[in-house]
Amino acid sequence: MKSNVIKLKNRPEAKPTNDDFEFAEEQVADLKEGEILLKSIYVSVDPYLRGRMRDQKSYVEPFKLDEPITSSIVAEVIESKNDSFKKGSHVHGMLAWKQYQISTGKDLQTVDGAKAPLSAYLGVLGLTGLTAYFGLEEIGKLKEGETVVVSGAAGAVGSTVGQIAKLKGCNVVGIAGTDEKIDMIKSDFGFDAGINYETTDNIKKALADACPNGIDVYWDNVGGEISDAVFFLINQKARIVNCGAIAVYNDTEIPKGVSPQPFLIKNSALMQGFIVSNYQDRFQEGISQLAQWFGKGKLKHEETIVEGFDNIPQAFIDLFDGKNKGKMVVKVD
Amino acid sequence: MKSNVIKLKNRPEAKPTNDDFEFAEEQVADLKEGEILLKSIYVSVDPYLRGRMRDQKSYVEPFKLDEPITSSIVAEVIESKNDSFKKGSHVHGMLAWKQYQISTGKDLQTVDGAKAPLSAYLGVLGLTGLTAYFGLEEIGKLKEGETVVVSGAAGAVGSTVGQIAKLKGCNVVGIAGTDEKIDMIKSDFGFDAGINYETTDNIKKALADACPNGIDVYWDNVGGEISDAVFFLINQKARIVNCGAIAVYNDTEIPKGVSPQPFLIKNSALMQGFIVSNYQDRFQEGISQLAQWFGKGKLKHEETIVEGFDNIPQAFIDLFDGKNKGKMVVKVD
Repeated sequence: MKSNVIKLKNRPEAKPTNDDFEFAEEQVADLKEGEILLKSIYVSVDPYLRGRMRDQKSYVEPFKLDEPITSSIVAEVIESKNDSFKKGSHVHGMLAWKQYQISTGKDLQTVDGAKAPLSAYLGVLGLTGLTAYFGLEEIGKLKEGETVVVSGAAGAVGSTVGQIAKLKGCNVVGIAGTDEKIDMIKSDFGFDAGINYETTDNIKKALADACPNGIDVYWDNVGGEISDAVFFLINQKARIVNCGAIAVYNDTEIPKGVSPQPFLIKNSALMQGFIVSNYQDRFQEGISQLAQWFGKGKLKHEETIVEGFDNIPQAFIDLFDGKNKGKMVVKVD
Repeated sequence: MKSNVIKLKNRPEAKPTNDDFEFAEEQVADLKEGEILLKSIYVSVDPYLRGRMRDQKSYVEPFKLDEPITSSIVAEVIESKNDSFKKGSHVHGMLAWKQYQISTGKDLQTVDGAKAPLSAYLGVLGLTGLTAYFGLEEIGKLKEGETVVVSGAAGAVGSTVGQIAKLKGCNVVGIAGTDEKIDMIKSDFGFDAGINYETTDNIKKALADACPNGIDVYWDNVGGEISDAVFFLINQKARIVNCGAIAVYNDTEIPKGVSPQPFLIKNSALMQGFIVSNYQDRFQEGISQLAQWFGKGKLKHEETIVEGFDNIPQAFIDLFDGKNKGKMVVKVD
């Protein structure tokens, strides 16, 4: 049997384009004892993959040229020679951008489509939800009544962060790039206020108006000029959670901005970066809490589902134009 | 009796000049019950005072125009109507730039010139030492064998930080602006290596050479370009202690630099600002530990003593040209 495969052809210089990816076909080998044959069902595309396309030291190895991209994928077990995985069941894990692939099952988790939609395991019950949960627990350390600002607020992580912050009793202000997204974060996700950075002349003033008591916690998904404006409004002992910097990921030169040091010093404030895998040994705790909120309907889940294996690269590229609302997922036919 | 007084005449626009200060003479009132008359002996001048000369929100109130500057001062009690303070004893606290002044004794601590030189209470046994101690304890969290980089290494705080880091078993690299200072931090304070940023063409390369295992903790006294270079070399879970930003304090525009966000994210690293008074309720712990090291000769103390009350403004200005080695103190005649 044959499988389509998507490989990294070129390391993108700035914004990725379709030319950076190559479609190929490969023969799927016969199953050996202990192996399972997987059919990809949902493929997650995420901004952080852009970082792995660079050839530089980071928290994970860079992707290799002419090899398949990997990301978080939910797949169906369509054949099994491994007693731990039944034919017809579903698994979740870091898998390759292939229609079909063989795995030993190592580092895969079984997921239950009866408990939640399968795509939710790529989002609010997967790394997205865990990212929001641990970033807030370990760095944000929210206190009731505090003001929390979230950039990239309509994205998968951002909308989950906002909802958790509301559950914790905070005043939550979201920043996003269209009026539609601003409406969504307020009406669907319960944010108290929203700022459209594309139509706001003065982001600093808009933030000051939305945060009359200053900013205690800033969840930063974007970096760049939006984040620079936040520094001017942080309160004493503010916490800035550096989750992403999508505004500068495509920069070809070292990005520059307002120096945070004087702001951090005069406010005894902190900025801390993290990656969700830092908390891998506590994932069960996170999933339990998220599933509890999800089951009670207190954690809504927005996703943009693109159809078709061949559209995976375009879906990834579209992330950088903000074309997604919530988690961007590709449903493989 | 009359006292000379130094007031803030203008808010400095960039680097402070003598014109920003005004000398005046005032009448010292008669002592009332519960008061003490103080004669200033040693006056501390510190970079952070520059921040208080701006008219903007910070962790402490800005100085008022046409009123005396205050800083950390050791004074002699020359007359007392307060049983807690004996005539002839010495006190330490935030006092005004006056030759003579009256106090109720509130927030003053008695210091003992027999246990340590009086000027040490403005330095290694005062706020300087406490700054180094709590910044390292609470943010740096040094582990044996880690690499610690200190900017402003020949300054009062920097040299204390380096010595504590050596006591904790770290590899310590200092950055300073003259060869003489580099010699001093190595031979007097036991730093393992030093970088003269004034004579080094490529600070990033010099740091990489001095830190073959990367940088675990960066004690940042300066901000600006030196700190920007550090980001490229930080290790996973690095801690950046933002203690000062003397390189940008005189900037008239908002200082800009390399955006730290991408570096913090990919290394799960943190930057945290602080001010020593955050830990005021633990000062006794800090002073005890510092005094123990000092008494054993493990914590050396470098100071630059300028003579003469009239030279206080110039001593302060000279801080920004790096004319001090260690703690800058003015001895009042």
